[in-house]
Amino acid sequence: MATVDRWLLPDGIEEILPPDAARIEGARRRVLELFHCWGYEFVITPHLEFLESLLTGAAKELELRTFKVTDPSSGRLMGFRSDITPQVARMEAHSLKQSGPSRLCYAGSVLHTRPRALSTSRSPIQVGAELYGVPGSEGDLEVISLMLDVLEQAQVPDIHMDLGHVGIYRGLCQAAGISGASEQQLFDALQRKAVDEIGELTAELPAAERGWLRALVELSGDAAVLDQARQRLAGAPAGVLQSLDELIALAESLRGRFPGVPLYFDLGELRGYHYHTGVVFAAFVPGTGQSIAQGGRYDNIGADFGRSRPATGFSTDLKTLVELGTAVLDEPRRGIWAPAGNAPVLWQAVRELRAAGERVVQATGHDDADQLHSSGCDRRLVEQQGAWVVVPLNS
Amino acid sequence: MATVDRWLLPDGIEEILPPDAARIEGARRRVLELFHCWGYEFVITPHLEFLESLLTGAAKELELRTFKVTDPSSGRLMGFRSDITPQVARMEAHSLKQSGPSRLCYAGSVLHTRPRALSTSRSPIQVGAELYGVPGSEGDLEVISLMLDVLEQAQVPDIHMDLGHVGIYRGLCQAAGISGASEQQLFDALQRKAVDEIGELTAELPAAERGWLRALVELSGDAAVLDQARQRLAGAPAGVLQSLDELIALAESLRGRFPGVPLYFDLGELRGYHYHTGVVFAAFVPGTGQSIAQGGRYDNIGADFGRSRPATGFSTDLKTLVELGTAVLDEPRRGIWAPAGNAPVLWQAVRELRAAGERVVQATGHDDADQLHSSGCDRRLVEQQGAWVVVPLNS
Repeated sequence: MATVDRWLLPDGIEEILPPDAARIEGARRRVLELFHCWGYEFVITPHLEFLESLLTGAAKELELRTFKVTDPSSGRLMGFRSDITPQVARMEAHSLKQSGPSRLCYAGSVLHTRPRALSTSRSPIQVGAELYGVPGSEGDLEVISLMLDVLEQAQVPDIHMDLGHVGIYRGLCQAAGISGASEQQLFDALQRKAVDEIGELTAELPAAERGWLRALVELSGDAAVLDQARQRLAGAPAGVLQSLDELIALAESLRGRFPGVPLYFDLGELRGYHYHTGVVFAAFVPGTGQSIAQGGRYDNIGADFGRSRPATGFSTDLKTLVELGTAVLDEPRRGIWAPAGNAPVLWQAVRELRAAGERVVQATGHDDADQLHSSGCDRRLVEQQGAWVVVPLNS
Repeated sequence: MATVDRWLLPDGIEEILPPDAARIEGARRRVLELFHCWGYEFVITPHLEFLESLLTGAAKELELRTFKVTDPSSGRLMGFRSDITPQVARMEAHSLKQSGPSRLCYAGSVLHTRPRALSTSRSPIQVGAELYGVPGSEGDLEVISLMLDVLEQAQVPDIHMDLGHVGIYRGLCQAAGISGASEQQLFDALQRKAVDEIGELTAELPAAERGWLRALVELSGDAAVLDQARQRLAGAPAGVLQSLDELIALAESLRGRFPGVPLYFDLGELRGYHYHTGVVFAAFVPGTGQSIAQGGRYDNIGADFGRSRPATGFSTDLKTLVELGTAVLDEPRRGIWAPAGNAPVLWQAVRELRAAGERVVQATGHDDADQLHSSGCDRRLVEQQGAWVVVPLNS
């Protein structure tokens, strides 16, 4: 292997150098601090699990995205986590077993066999929060508000939000007797807004059902969509209309809380995640095709782990947050430059300064001419009349 | 798959619940803060790399430990990082290219196909620091001092240290003309202190060389070992004696800086890492067979990436640090309990409190009787004469 190949990284896999790495660590702290202020408790999920556990309750999409290896100690297939949400759901269902609402949050790398889109990373640093035990708009509102708070703290400019409700599509399919492979085909066609295909797939349905399903493609845009939906889905099953009402109520609350964030609606957008069951949402910024933060309701995911609970949550990628955010994450570089040497009094002086929280960089016998400058130090430790004292750099 | 299987984790793979996860996050911050105070800069290495890059400069041991998958986008074999040190070396050699010393640090999960020992994790959270460009004892002293500072901050009681120097063994092998497979066999025998086997492997060497190599098995114990080594290795090649002198000087400095930490020496212990070239060291506590923090010098590892530099560093596992440390990492649980509801004035009051850094947990319509208690809140947000105010819990 040529030297040049040894430092090549696989496509979509990044290394992060100073000072960018410190910015990401800073953003991580701020997001986790914010989660803490909202009452969310931190959990750490494994990077590696039995494949069956990882893919339970989720579906094809996660399977395709997940790297797989055989466990040498059990002979069973394991997968590297490609999403943390289902892991937290397993934890909540199995290990925590709280009866009232529980609030959990996490931060960690995930790995994808293929990127979500051409230019996106295969190793995002996923941070997110999950709320269990609070059904309907009350829970959705808390989680979306928290997500917008995170984006606001990172000072991501020009955010807008897309809202949808998987219950509308699911309810219409149920009413039309569409399930299994046909539901999947229709789902795929809807995601692509492939009008002709949807026409074909629904051609044999009664006129009303056909009309409702076909309407979903067109029901996307600003708040006017919600009124159109009320008209075009009039007569649809009660569950569908209830989902629509939930969405309308949620939009109303969000407008009150975040008047500066434009809301868009897309009743045919199902976020592509098969585990969602209710409101789904995503935040976008102009010029970035992919959502920068997203989530939704996934009630009953815990059923596969023996415990069924309302659940909703969101996630985002720390790298994206730092890249698009305008929050200043650079700490001013300060520090004390100490001379080289191993004298006990010098060591003691350096140690006390560090214990007091000061950054002290010690010179070595191998420094280059630029070392002091590149250290970012603004003061210097010098010996004056037998004592070590800190003085300005140029004194 | 039965429900019970879905939450089983592979052997040696852990999930971490509240409040333990918060303790680990707290320890992470404190360690990174300490690294910062010593002038070490944070980097983030990829979880996944081309196998050839990961194993360059390292050897068999890392290969056996590394999970491998095929990259669907390039068809090449990739490995999940099982050690971060060689990755940082690659970064330093290729991406940073500083001419003077550089100080780097990191924190992140690694994965091992098999545990280091029966009861150890296959997914430690490795934190560590690496110092490039400072050869010999000067660099070793800085890195070992930093490691002991980390252990002291975590308040790990009863630490003792083992020190060795790979240069002694390497120099003796070179003098005896042992290399390749024979060196490897002898190395393995030394690690197991298999006296008979070492006798056989060295039987055909001249008396002096044989005596020196056989002496290594016995040269382990407290500081008296260093005097014995001077006698028993008298007449050994200059490089060997120079390595011994380095070790003696380092021990002297460490005794001055950390008089409370007992030092042991083992000239036959080579830490099992094939990439080490000089001083190797490890910290132990009674009752734990495995070292709890370890490191060593690995000069010239960057040569495989086209840049050869002196290098030394150490690493430890955050989970072990939190488990064995007695530092109090629990923040006192405080918070303000806010009533359920979506009134704009209530939202505004909650928002302001959170922006001021307060932890505010909002009640929901689905709380259980214990919710307020389990939230850890010590105050309550109530409406008094039209304004929202914070009052003690029992008022």
